[in-house]
Amino acid sequence: MTKFDEATQAIRVDETTYDVCLDTGYSIGGPLNGGYLMAVLLRAVVDASPHEHPVSTGAQFLRAPVPGPAQVRLEQLKAGRTAAMTRATLVQDGVSFIEALVTTATLGDVAPDWTGEPAAVLPPAEECVKLPDPKPESNMTLSAQMDMRFDPPTLGWLQGRPTGRPEARAYFRMTEPQDPDPYVLALAVDALPPVVFSAGARGWAPTVELTWHLRALPAPGWLTLVGSGRLISDGWFDEDVEVWDSAGRLVAQSRQLARVGRG
Amino acid sequence: MTKFDEATQAIRVDETTYDVCLDTGYSIGGPLNGGYLMAVLLRAVVDASPHEHPVSTGAQFLRAPVPGPAQVRLEQLKAGRTAAMTRATLVQDGVSFIEALVTTATLGDVAPDWTGEPAAVLPPAEECVKLPDPKPESNMTLSAQMDMRFDPPTLGWLQGRPTGRPEARAYFRMTEPQDPDPYVLALAVDALPPVVFSAGARGWAPTVELTWHLRALPAPGWLTLVGSGRLISDGWFDEDVEVWDSAGRLVAQSRQLARVGRG
Repeated sequence: MTKFDEATQAIRVDETTYDVCLDTGYSIGGPLNGGYLMAVLLRAVVDASPHEHPVSTGAQFLRAPVPGPAQVRLEQLKAGRTAAMTRATLVQDGVSFIEALVTTATLGDVAPDWTGEPAAVLPPAEECVKLPDPKPESNMTLSAQMDMRFDPPTLGWLQGRPTGRPEARAYFRMTEPQDPDPYVLALAVDALPPVVFSAGARGWAPTVELTWHLRALPAPGWLTLVGSGRLISDGWFDEDVEVWDSAGRLVAQSRQLARVGRG
Repeated sequence: MTKFDEATQAIRVDETTYDVCLDTGYSIGGPLNGGYLMAVLLRAVVDASPHEHPVSTGAQFLRAPVPGPAQVRLEQLKAGRTAAMTRATLVQDGVSFIEALVTTATLGDVAPDWTGEPAAVLPPAEECVKLPDPKPESNMTLSAQMDMRFDPPTLGWLQGRPTGRPEARAYFRMTEPQDPDPYVLALAVDALPPVVFSAGARGWAPTVELTWHLRALPAPGWLTLVGSGRLISDGWFDEDVEVWDSAGRLVAQSRQLARVGRG
């Protein structure tokens, strides 16, 4: 069992309740990363489902939970032959922190009937750059879990040279040896710095809603994350992330609606 | 009150229950249109919210309800100063048909800080074409409610000439005089024929999950719908729809995950 598998473990109490322990290693300056929290929820949902894969997850982030014990509460909304639908709620001390609607199904290993191309091609990994190590007092413990290599212009905001539009692109893998799976993809779709940083915004950009779809099971190796946005207006922005696997296949697509930071 | 306002009316029973009457005029061959059903849900959500606008709606389509009386049941998940979050369930005869997580907020009338451009530009409306009138026995009553003018190549599938990729583009307005508002946008994001028809697929393509974000309040006049997809694989496809208003502003963006028809 990898560290990530352990940190996202959900232990069945009964058919509607799972015990989890939110890990301090997934903090982004205090709050826990939303992708990590979705992975925890999805462990419980899939364990309780007749199907194997979380094909669609729509999550509302109500409040930011703290590390430590929590529960996932499930309500089965439909158990169909092709797909099952479940409502999952992350609860801590009786308060709901995330509520998600999840569709599970079992994906086959088949070639696509039709596929688009990536919206952007990254330079080779050796020309890409890492984020500087976070200061210990920043409580960015998430950084140590992930190995990411960024397309250099999309980190220009670090040197005061944002590209002027919402974007972020990087190669992604877990730091420990771990092949990507649907839970790693849940982390990956929320792993990039907010795309608005490249448009000149700064500060904590809380996710309000994030929906992501698992489109295929990822091949082993690096993932490629292509993040973009369409509109920054009235304090709100959208962040679209596509995840491509090492075989060049679109394996996940996400969109989140978030608030622009005031930082 | 327009016909659409009346067909989407939600009458407060108490703070968690609204009575609605699902209208036969929004049928797509039997089942009711998902966008129409979302509009009905959103009437209740917004009525019960301290905020004015449904900025984010993530809906799971569990089953297809029939026209006639139904209820919307609400659970308030969070009532914040910037945004409120509500779970809304469409119930008929004690069975849940749609479950949605909705974020409400109040959008201002401000210029965007940054905006992308439409992915495609439509020819002038007079060069665009209508869908042929449906046969009465097809029970496509929805068609009469909407005035849509399609970018001709994206209707090529009607003459056996699909473009070979998932796409659909059209100008959109209600048939009766009605300015677009957030409820009309809920209808608009699910109003195009399935984008997979342009890729050669046919038949009933049931929506499993649809998330859409209201990004600005639409100006009066025609809306422009730009629909596309990224992957058709293993019986699943995604449909992205952007809605632009007559002032050239991105007012809504949606993505649905749906099943490819066997037709």
